[in-house]
Amino acid sequence: MPGPNDHHVIIVGGGFAGLWATRALARAPVCVTLIDRANHHLFQPLLYQVATAGLSSPDIAAPLRHILRNQANVEVRMADVERVEPVQRRIAFDDGSTMAYDTLLLATGATHTYFGHDEWAAHAPGLKTLDDALHLRRRLLLAFERAEAESDPVQRAAWLSFAIVGGGPTGVELAGTLSEIAHHTLRREFRHIDPASAKVRLIEAGPRVLSSFPESLSEKARAQLQRLGVEVVTGTPVDAISDEGIRLGGTFVPARTVVWAAGVAASPLGQSLGVELDRAGRVPVLPDLTVPGHPEIFVAGDLATVVQDGKPVPGVAPAAKQMGRHVGETIRDRLAQKPTTNFRYRDYGNLATIGRMAAVVDLRGLRFSGLLAWWFWLAAHVFFLIGFRNRLVVLLNWFMAYWSYQRAARIIVGHDNARRASDADAG
Amino acid sequence: MPGPNDHHVIIVGGGFAGLWATRALARAPVCVTLIDRANHHLFQPLLYQVATAGLSSPDIAAPLRHILRNQANVEVRMADVERVEPVQRRIAFDDGSTMAYDTLLLATGATHTYFGHDEWAAHAPGLKTLDDALHLRRRLLLAFERAEAESDPVQRAAWLSFAIVGGGPTGVELAGTLSEIAHHTLRREFRHIDPASAKVRLIEAGPRVLSSFPESLSEKARAQLQRLGVEVVTGTPVDAISDEGIRLGGTFVPARTVVWAAGVAASPLGQSLGVELDRAGRVPVLPDLTVPGHPEIFVAGDLATVVQDGKPVPGVAPAAKQMGRHVGETIRDRLAQKPTTNFRYRDYGNLATIGRMAAVVDLRGLRFSGLLAWWFWLAAHVFFLIGFRNRLVVLLNWFMAYWSYQRAARIIVGHDNARRASDADAG
Repeated sequence: MPGPNDHHVIIVGGGFAGLWATRALARAPVCVTLIDRANHHLFQPLLYQVATAGLSSPDIAAPLRHILRNQANVEVRMADVERVEPVQRRIAFDDGSTMAYDTLLLATGATHTYFGHDEWAAHAPGLKTLDDALHLRRRLLLAFERAEAESDPVQRAAWLSFAIVGGGPTGVELAGTLSEIAHHTLRREFRHIDPASAKVRLIEAGPRVLSSFPESLSEKARAQLQRLGVEVVTGTPVDAISDEGIRLGGTFVPARTVVWAAGVAASPLGQSLGVELDRAGRVPVLPDLTVPGHPEIFVAGDLATVVQDGKPVPGVAPAAKQMGRHVGETIRDRLAQKPTTNFRYRDYGNLATIGRMAAVVDLRGLRFSGLLAWWFWLAAHVFFLIGFRNRLVVLLNWFMAYWSYQRAARIIVGHDNARRASDADAG
Repeated sequence: MPGPNDHHVIIVGGGFAGLWATRALARAPVCVTLIDRANHHLFQPLLYQVATAGLSSPDIAAPLRHILRNQANVEVRMADVERVEPVQRRIAFDDGSTMAYDTLLLATGATHTYFGHDEWAAHAPGLKTLDDALHLRRRLLLAFERAEAESDPVQRAAWLSFAIVGGGPTGVELAGTLSEIAHHTLRREFRHIDPASAKVRLIEAGPRVLSSFPESLSEKARAQLQRLGVEVVTGTPVDAISDEGIRLGGTFVPARTVVWAAGVAASPLGQSLGVELDRAGRVPVLPDLTVPGHPEIFVAGDLATVVQDGKPVPGVAPAAKQMGRHVGETIRDRLAQKPTTNFRYRDYGNLATIGRMAAVVDLRGLRFSGLLAWWFWLAAHVFFLIGFRNRLVVLLNWFMAYWSYQRAARIIVGHDNARRASDADAG
């Protein structure tokens, strides 16, 4: 806990940026308070696997306290930060209490936005947290159950119709995996429906999927999605979403299950900094990742907007890690009165998985797709998963899934409006 | 799906009794409809491991559809049965629809009861379903977080005080494991509290814990619990439970976290049969497990009360499996016009685990406890877990937990009253 003479660093957010900053401060003469709403660090790149029943929550999450238990200068706190008070140099929690800092790092990331249509949230849940993933898993699995119980063929088809809105990496992963579930995993399990007749549509407002990749790889991705049974609809914005389906350019498409994988908005915490934000609510930071006029406040990860060589640094995990590490090193060097440097993003490449044996890889010009890309993606993701145990379990699960087409976590827990809560006699 | 000429068997409940009955009908000339509120069969003996963060839900659950996908005469339906209408020979669902049967098996098990104090449910959750287990996991893990954030020493001690009500197998397992978490798993992770100072109390109204075991093993269990740091309080009924603690024989004991492991009541479905139930709401069945006056209705598992050699058959998994198998065989033999037999429970022994390297075993007179009993318990439970994948993952998790004192599933998901829902920017 911070003594009166220690330099007190508050880090808000235990994602990639916050955690890597905390670690970079391991040997610095500071006291760090790491604050997160959740008790865990989440390996977000594999969150879609929890949503599609391939992995369970603990496979991709580890308690922050546990990760940092041996770093003596860190205190982890599970709490909700409501705002920053930059003039007083303190943060305010939702319970009204405050905490003073000498240096602050905001790394609370991004959430999804419905572009002003917040009423869509109830019909088209997004995917950012473990809670989101478990909610989505329940929705996806229940849709097949509802279809099986439905006797009206029109309603049945609507339950077997899925729309994924947003053709970025998350949307592509969800569409590809959901199609695999329908075509392979659930085979032979139902008596009234053929799960393989399910319609999975990926809807992208822009001209192509995976727009952060070169055009040739977007084309490969589209072809691979189609091979997996996904209908790819590009250039078509969504006009409306309801419980029954979506409206696309004036045409109603029935779909009882809609997933929102479009529209990223930065966490609202940046609003309390008193600086102008960009359109997505991100904080434009100086080249050393500090807030203009506040050298004691850093912003890193998806909450920061950093322009480098005329292009924004992408909102991906490697960028967040690099920013976090840079912030930690800058704080350390400042206290040691050493010169500090500007942040420089090193782009090692861009990967996206699509489904079984399908992925695209762009390693600074070296581009490939298909099976080889999928193995590359798999190796990279297992390697970067935090924690020895998780890597082993994830590998084991994937091996079994690959071999059997099965998915380990096809368990419906929790309840939605359609089912009663706290019923406890299902055996 | 049942054709007009098939003998239609409805089985309500996909627990041990229902699933084993379904399997015993694999080659019988019947159509089976297996109905459960959940989509999965749950390996209930390991549920406490999910509640205490050792295993994740999919480790101990498998989709019923998947288990039964190759049994062509079975249709699985995820639905809520509201009542039986024995005169019309049909069941009614909560949506108002009905389904006719030729033969019915009710195997909906038991839930917990608060002996008329339903207001205790909010303060002292029980453990019967996966939802219960995840709720409990959240409560147990959050208690340590709250203690860490609390500056008032009295309140801090209350957050570090746990009461488990009920000294049966579930209460004993929970108390022993929770004490291990406090003393070992969380070591070095907190900065303001010492988790090992947590007080875990196991409260039993009767004279001894594990009352279904011989007295000598109850004594061993108590000694092993005390060695693990649990305070065992026997002969003391609970008078009151509130958010702040419990009242025991007039004395108030602070405890912000109370778990209810006492009081089992049969599922309410038995009430619609029109026969007199026993005190716990169970259905007294004839020696062939049918309901008096209704040879076409069977009851098995925890919902049935069967007296054999003057003693009730215990509510344990092996008894439920044996009953289920007997019901399936009886239906098959009846249709083949073969003679049927009465049910006979074969008692192979009684096991209970207490915690790390601590258990008691009673194999028809061969009694042992401690490390050897623990290994025996472990082997038996892994062996009986459904599904190859689950066994491997569970073994792996246990090996890692044993070796490192760590617990893989220490992830807080969902929300309770104290935390906001659908917050999505925790990184």
